[in-house]
Amino acid sequence: MKNVAVLGATTLIGEELIKILEQKNFPTKKLFLFASEETEKKTVMFKDDEVEMLPAYEDFIDNVDLVFSCVDDDQAKEIIPKFKDKAVVIDTSHAFRMETDVPLVIPEINPEEAKEHNGIIANPSSTTIHTLVPLYPLHQKATIKRMIVATYQSVSGHSRDALDELKLELEYLVMNQNIEKSEGQIFEHPIANNIIPQIGNFNKNGYTNEETHLLDETRKILKDDSMQITSTCVRVPVFIVDSEVISVEFENSISPQEAKGILKKAPGVKLFDKDDKYPMPVYVAEKDVVFVGRVRKDNTLDNGLALWIVANNLRKGAALNAVQIAELL
Amino acid sequence: MKNVAVLGATTLIGEELIKILEQKNFPTKKLFLFASEETEKKTVMFKDDEVEMLPAYEDFIDNVDLVFSCVDDDQAKEIIPKFKDKAVVIDTSHAFRMETDVPLVIPEINPEEAKEHNGIIANPSSTTIHTLVPLYPLHQKATIKRMIVATYQSVSGHSRDALDELKLELEYLVMNQNIEKSEGQIFEHPIANNIIPQIGNFNKNGYTNEETHLLDETRKILKDDSMQITSTCVRVPVFIVDSEVISVEFENSISPQEAKGILKKAPGVKLFDKDDKYPMPVYVAEKDVVFVGRVRKDNTLDNGLALWIVANNLRKGAALNAVQIAELL
Repeated sequence: MKNVAVLGATTLIGEELIKILEQKNFPTKKLFLFASEETEKKTVMFKDDEVEMLPAYEDFIDNVDLVFSCVDDDQAKEIIPKFKDKAVVIDTSHAFRMETDVPLVIPEINPEEAKEHNGIIANPSSTTIHTLVPLYPLHQKATIKRMIVATYQSVSGHSRDALDELKLELEYLVMNQNIEKSEGQIFEHPIANNIIPQIGNFNKNGYTNEETHLLDETRKILKDDSMQITSTCVRVPVFIVDSEVISVEFENSISPQEAKGILKKAPGVKLFDKDDKYPMPVYVAEKDVVFVGRVRKDNTLDNGLALWIVANNLRKGAALNAVQIAELL
Repeated sequence: MKNVAVLGATTLIGEELIKILEQKNFPTKKLFLFASEETEKKTVMFKDDEVEMLPAYEDFIDNVDLVFSCVDDDQAKEIIPKFKDKAVVIDTSHAFRMETDVPLVIPEINPEEAKEHNGIIANPSSTTIHTLVPLYPLHQKATIKRMIVATYQSVSGHSRDALDELKLELEYLVMNQNIEKSEGQIFEHPIANNIIPQIGNFNKNGYTNEETHLLDETRKILKDDSMQITSTCVRVPVFIVDSEVISVEFENSISPQEAKGILKKAPGVKLFDKDDKYPMPVYVAEKDVVFVGRVRKDNTLDNGLALWIVANNLRKGAALNAVQIAELL
């Protein structure tokens, strides 16, 4: 039984994580919830207790064994080093993912690495998790050489404020009023009735952070720096759940039928077997696995397959994966 | 000056086409507008005249020189053959696109073929037009070998009823009411707050009609049956304007800078040159060209480029291209 802390307990991921700890009946001696002072929420029900939000994590560093960090990159960089010699920290931000002494773990793929930590274990980005959970068992069979990815990412991947912004814009849209953007809003452009082909900032090569993370994290998790990935990460007017189109080239031959056979048995994966049945955001919002459909031959690539992937970015893409990492310890 | 007929004058494409004829001051002696008897709209203003909708096209077959057909595949197959010996028919449906004696024309690409018609000229699908208008000048420079496409298609590509269905579902969504689907609706699944990876019916190989059309039409227009295209055509909760992610492999080397130089001068194309400026549906709804942004190197492909394309599927993707074909005659 551990003393468990959640940093950023009122973020979307933090909230989801507390729910998952309860659903899984995670062995918790005491739960410490931290949130910034501005947060409106002062308490959360956990099992049968009302747990108070604490503003000052500094006073509790010696009291906790396991920390789930659900704060952003900058806050993670500031706060996590203070905990790392006292407790194990599982971080959902990007801050430490590419550090060589920080394992980057997807329990279905590299569970053994969780134990080699030096105080911090990183949770990959949701797009990396959604992509690799189903592709890893195919990789084991036929070895992935390259993949081309286009995403359809929901606004919840940004923040709770992004959910509110989409909701407000949809209200304007339904009332036939103009959507005017102002400073301080999450998205620079309208997101209702629109598609925004940018997530994160641009790097010099024309790719965004989100796109670069998918490449870097995949290479780290699969331990293959020759792996090539081109991705275009795109925000769509959907509240929760991300979708992806993927074309994959394998080193060795693998037919759609073989791939489906592997995906049917793959851990953490639910296959939609028939062409005209496929997963979609509205139907998988409450589910924990990564859904795969439209598995077919991709004739543009040697040993190519095309797939459609859908997963809840707050759960398997973030909070659930983090709790699953904790279960490995 | 010609006697011009529009079949399906009250469809979204038909309406847009009548607007474009007026905007372009297309040389029209008399305009005949045909719509099914159930249509509620009885007249349309064209230039300074009120033009009546006619239900029975059969009585006017001998009176027209040029026909724009904006009806669906089945109606096109029934009606167009009756006109083809009397008038030139420009058909926006799929019905005749793959017939060997029917030219499939994008005026920026193969204008000369418009003159080789036997009474029918076909307009390609919107996805084919949006893809090839910018890619053709790059193809002339470096020869496309293969492309991988993921689309973000608006509901207007289906029909006016699809617009109403999205609008109604958004109203339910904003009022926190469940979206219940019923028989007779356009989309089998909710489209508000959702992403549907199916446009058209499925073929045996796991690809939909829409995806197959892009491949077949591209091969016909570029006269290259070895061209490989994998596409995933996806419906998104946007009213008008389609977007696309494309990865292209060329036979010969072409850098992003060279490609941008070509796209800047390409007919019918507007390039967004800077990485962090890109076209999006909300900003291009009233525009007639095909917009291209995010041109960058695609490291997964030899001589590879990745691009982001946005265009109005009712105008350049349909009605405008049809009127531009007529202008070639």
